[in-house]
Amino acid sequence: MSGSLTAATSGCDLLGAMAVGSITALGGGTIRDAVILRVVPFWVEEWEYIVMAALAAGGVFFLWGNLEPGREVLPGLVLKRADGGEGNLMALGDALGLGAFAAVGAMNGIRAAAPPLVSAICGLSTCTFGGVMRDTLLNRPVRILHSYSDMYATIAFGGAVGYLGLRALAPAAQGLRIAACVSGVVGARYMAWNDDWRLPYWKGKTVVHSDLDPRKKQK
Amino acid sequence: MSGSLTAATSGCDLLGAMAVGSITALGGGTIRDAVILRVVPFWVEEWEYIVMAALAAGGVFFLWGNLEPGREVLPGLVLKRADGGEGNLMALGDALGLGAFAAVGAMNGIRAAAPPLVSAICGLSTCTFGGVMRDTLLNRPVRILHSYSDMYATIAFGGAVGYLGLRALAPAAQGLRIAACVSGVVGARYMAWNDDWRLPYWKGKTVVHSDLDPRKKQK
Amino acid sequence: MSGSLTAATSGCDLLGAMAVGSITALGGGTIRDAVILRVVPFWVEEWEYIVMAALAAGGVFFLWGNLEPGREVLPGLVLKRADGGEGNLMALGDALGLGAFAAVGAMNGIRAAAPPLVSAICGLSTCTFGGVMRDTLLNRPVRILHSYSDMYATIAFGGAVGYLGLRALAPAAQGLRIAACVSGVVGARYMAWNDDWRLPYWKGKTVVHSDLDPRKKQK
Repeated sequence: MSGSLTAATSGCDLLGAMAVGSITALGGGTIRDAVILRVVPFWVEEWEYIVMAALAAGGVFFLWGNLEPGREVLPGLVLKRADGGEGNLMALGDALGLGAFAAVGAMNGIRAAAPPLVSAICGLSTCTFGGVMRDTLLNRPVRILHSYSDMYATIAFGGAVGYLGLRALAPAAQGLRIAACVSGVVGARYMAWNDDWRLPYWKGKTVVHSDLDPRKKQK
Repeated sequence: MSGSLTAATSGCDLLGAMAVGSITALGGGTIRDAVILRVVPFWVEEWEYIVMAALAAGGVFFLWGNLEPGREVLPGLVLKRADGGEGNLMALGDALGLGAFAAVGAMNGIRAAAPPLVSAICGLSTCTFGGVMRDTLLNRPVRILHSYSDMYATIAFGGAVGYLGLRALAPAAQGLRIAACVSGVVGARYMAWNDDWRLPYWKGKTVVHSDLDPRKKQK
Repeated sequence: MSGSLTAATSGCDLLGAMAVGSITALGGGTIRDAVILRVVPFWVEEWEYIVMAALAAGGVFFLWGNLEPGREVLPGLVLKRADGGEGNLMALGDALGLGAFAAVGAMNGIRAAAPPLVSAICGLSTCTFGGVMRDTLLNRPVRILHSYSDMYATIAFGGAVGYLGLRALAPAAQGLRIAACVSGVVGARYMAWNDDWRLPYWKGKTVVHSDLDPRKKQK
């Protein structure tokens, strides 16, 4: 849904929004499967995922304009803000998905017998590469890399690491560690959002990279 | 040829134009093979494709400037428009390639025993991801996603679906369904070009996505 | 290190700089393994590479600001220029890495029994795709494609071709041909840098590509 909205507001047409929406939803798992773990992407066998992602993206494309801004769907939760932006219900859904993707990605790494660090990177990739592709395709600054946004990828990585740690401690309790991963990620995202958690970055960034610099030959 | 020209006019040097030209030509099939179907990309064994793509890209890079603008190569068909842009002969070649790529991509999906939807996506990918990579590498808006351009990816997808449908109806007549796919795609592209077919898009696009929005915390 | 610095000066936070730095270092080999040769990326088994790349990127992120500009580390070699840019010691390290990556990439192609042209492209990919991903993720013009920069990809490709040629001439002398490849690449980069070697490009580039051109329907 976020991919479709971002695409539509960037001037994409219906197919563009459906394509970007589907890639945002499925792209992270695709990179995990095809590049890191070298298995067939999950949606080749279970193609229902493509249909669901494309329908959700297409539905948002058509219905968003008719949504009443600022209306509470649940107490305190709105889908569309009064100013037309994405409401906190979408942020909640995103956080739930983030936790689930971190756990699922880490599980996929374990199932493929990858080293723990690579399994954690599988969790991180599942969560983030869809959004990276969305931003790259739309020529926007990649959100998760930048200091203007609150913590996201760090929390996803932390969730995957937590999942793997709990698995090492108590291998049997799978349901418990999934619940812990999802609720931990949702809680951390809530705090990052509210308290504006930021990683360190370079203030007053001056471009020192030499590639484009006519003075580069000076020592 | 389109990749090389776009690269050259974007300030790329000879190698850049040859690289972008080859990636435009071979990139779609590479994604189809390496990511979706998990086979070795077709050009690893049949490396003549690389040579042909690189030579075509390099040839266009050097020869385009010497081409006489507006000259009819065939009656009514020009390679280079009077104003120096790509003529309708290149659009025709592109449409022929689009139809062939849609059929070949769908065939590859079938050969790998992929579900029909995934085979159709193989056709779409073969047609479009080369151009997506061209635009991403050159920091241009991705053409097929956007509303400013007439229908392209939709027609490619339709061609692949048509090919798969004809195959289900009459499995023996391969030559016939390839011809139908190519001529259908060329005809649809001709009409899309002439009548300016567009998919729906959001008019007066206002950016509502919250990532960059300082007001995002308001409900 | 170059990836981390470029990311930090583009406004990335710590994790962004570490991610972009690691992708710059490992991305070329990943494309070579996962896309071209269809083996598991080298860093899945040997995950120490990820740790090293991430630590180097994180170290540069924190320490660069404290480096004294213009200080010679070795006679005539500075890490950070007087104006704060990357010094010639980094260019030397980059050239050494370029030669080694070209040889290693070509070796990987040979080990996978790829045709010679594909092995040379493996060398080229190992050298360049990391930087291509860095520039694409940061929304910068892709350095190696453009005429504003001195020769880079051409030299990498030449190094890989030279390695493969020496291997065909004298299959036993592996150490010798690695040394020849690395020193040839370093020498060529030195001359390209000093004498400003450029490939041909289109001067006064006028955009002739028709996609965005309202006049495209004129013949």
